[in-house]
Amino acid sequence: MLSAVRATSSPIAVPIDLGDRSYSILIGGHVIDDPTAYEGLPKGAHALIVTNETVAPLYLSRVQAQLQARHAQVHTVVLPDGEAHKEWGTLQRIFDALLAAGCDRKTVLYALGGGVVGDMTGFAAACFMRGVAFVQIPTTLLAQVDSSVGGKTGINHPLGKNMVGAFHQPLRVLCDLDVLRSLPPRELSAGLAEIIKYGPIADMAFFDWIEANIAALRQLEPSALARAVQRSCEIKAAVVSSDEREAGLRAILNFGHTFGHAIEAGMGYGSWLHGEAVGCGMVMAARLSQTVGLVDGAFVDRIRHLVERAGLPVVAPVLDPQRNAQRYLDLMRVDKKAEAGEIRFVLIDGPGKAVLRAVPDAVVARVIADSCQGA
Amino acid sequence: MLSAVRATSSPIAVPIDLGDRSYSILIGGHVIDDPTAYEGLPKGAHALIVTNETVAPLYLSRVQAQLQARHAQVHTVVLPDGEAHKEWGTLQRIFDALLAAGCDRKTVLYALGGGVVGDMTGFAAACFMRGVAFVQIPTTLLAQVDSSVGGKTGINHPLGKNMVGAFHQPLRVLCDLDVLRSLPPRELSAGLAEIIKYGPIADMAFFDWIEANIAALRQLEPSALARAVQRSCEIKAAVVSSDEREAGLRAILNFGHTFGHAIEAGMGYGSWLHGEAVGCGMVMAARLSQTVGLVDGAFVDRIRHLVERAGLPVVAPVLDPQRNAQRYLDLMRVDKKAEAGEIRFVLIDGPGKAVLRAVPDAVVARVIADSCQGA
Repeated sequence: MLSAVRATSSPIAVPIDLGDRSYSILIGGHVIDDPTAYEGLPKGAHALIVTNETVAPLYLSRVQAQLQARHAQVHTVVLPDGEAHKEWGTLQRIFDALLAAGCDRKTVLYALGGGVVGDMTGFAAACFMRGVAFVQIPTTLLAQVDSSVGGKTGINHPLGKNMVGAFHQPLRVLCDLDVLRSLPPRELSAGLAEIIKYGPIADMAFFDWIEANIAALRQLEPSALARAVQRSCEIKAAVVSSDEREAGLRAILNFGHTFGHAIEAGMGYGSWLHGEAVGCGMVMAARLSQTVGLVDGAFVDRIRHLVERAGLPVVAPVLDPQRNAQRYLDLMRVDKKAEAGEIRFVLIDGPGKAVLRAVPDAVVARVIADSCQGA
Repeated sequence: MLSAVRATSSPIAVPIDLGDRSYSILIGGHVIDDPTAYEGLPKGAHALIVTNETVAPLYLSRVQAQLQARHAQVHTVVLPDGEAHKEWGTLQRIFDALLAAGCDRKTVLYALGGGVVGDMTGFAAACFMRGVAFVQIPTTLLAQVDSSVGGKTGINHPLGKNMVGAFHQPLRVLCDLDVLRSLPPRELSAGLAEIIKYGPIADMAFFDWIEANIAALRQLEPSALARAVQRSCEIKAAVVSSDEREAGLRAILNFGHTFGHAIEAGMGYGSWLHGEAVGCGMVMAARLSQTVGLVDGAFVDRIRHLVERAGLPVVAPVLDPQRNAQRYLDLMRVDKKAEAGEIRFVLIDGPGKAVLRAVPDAVVARVIADSCQGA
């Protein structure tokens, strides 16, 4: 169905306006098989496709076929799958492959996979010979709506997520909606978390639309999916364009992420999916917004209900049976948004508007306690 | 003598014009002990001084004393000394220290040491939380005239030098001429190689001046040293300002470096000093320029003579007794300036002017053979 509908229509293009680092996101069915989707990209002698062992059997040969018409040599690196591998040793395999193949500065890297592949490939591109070009082909819903805009790349450190990285913009992003058919339901839900996020922070009309279309989205209905991806990218693009290096406004995109990162780190990376942690984190951040008097309980209920309908957890995990709130606070204090040990939360200041604010530890601790009981 | 002369005078400031990444190089005696040299730098809660085990006993406490007046917490990391440690494992120690100390995005890194410390600290600053500020305090002549301008940072890969890195500009560079007194003569000579370089590629009047003052420079005569550092930084700044990301012109700064990198890699990093390899590499590149008809033999002799008077090697090492030229060519082909396997050399197109050009392997091989015999 999806492929039949989309194969004949041109992809939707969302322009990302970043001066001389501007690029387009192409959204549609069978985009990866469409030669016109690659037009205008540089044709260096070498291309390197970075993917993982889950995605490779499904889509690697199709992307290879397109690139072989454009580059004299098309190399591939197949990484192990999962957030646990988003670290230096795995990244090093990309550099090893580039250098063993004699790749030069005109080499184009292609990231074929989810957020982990995208973040690592982007970071490798940022660092290899001090910067080469890369193209993103995100194969998860989360990556399509999140890491396809913003230029954030990097790896984890044992003491914190995404602590080592760079801002490096892709030349283009190809969002193929058909490839989402191979996504496990749990990963689809994880992607919906980031889509839902754009409602409370920026666009409540979009939130209304998601509430009305959540079932269609979970069934991968093509036009609903296209609209959700497009609108998410548009909102993120507007925020990022005005604050590429995350000096201020851009931080609102981290709604749910401060709690979410604590959950991911506290449970061990890879245990909760990023989107699951963010989904639960949004409920916690909404509750914190209510506790400090910015929104009412009905609004928190609305968020929790939609997160739940998206198939995401809404009860926070206990990270430490003895000193749970303290463990959350410790993990959040190492967050990149913290300054001089003060955690700054993205709160909802009335539906559709986000603010960045510090909150007393005691207040945060109460919200953590309530959230772990699903209050 | 030096300290007596310089302590009373203000440092020379060389402005580096790079738009919103502009900064100044302050050159003078006792700069590191001068509180005014630090004025205007950000005063985040955390500063981290990165240095090595050779430099730490000499200058760390003096820089610490200055920074303690500016930051609530001043942390230090003392790395092992030497090019062999310019790799990920050592870099990781900087990230470990930053995260263990709870450093945030407002942290300022200080690189106190030679080129290796500068390159690694700069790269750590480029990547930590996707970019924090750093200040360079180069303690070798080479680092003062070379890595203090240009924003190149990075680490080595087993398959190539500086293959993983970033462009990241410092907020300021403090060139203290007094600290050069602790430099072993071999390292002083290595620094002179990069100073000599600026003559043939850009300013033959400066080359004349170096010829007349080489003895004074080797004796660390303060005014000669100040002039040499200042003029080198000025020339490099003019080139870098017009080509920050090394798209074209900037490559001329690599005069002598293509051969030099092959020598460094072929002999094993750390065996020849970078400046020694570049000194010898300049003689080879001059000879190559002569072979393709761009300069005469008298010019090559002049370069070789000055390189020799600077205390640098002028006879190239044999990297492989059986297939020496091929070994050089293989190593040069992995150089970042190579494109699609073609090595592009910085040649002298008449004294004071450099060009980037590919040369047939057979011609290069002949020059390598001649250079290894000191012809």
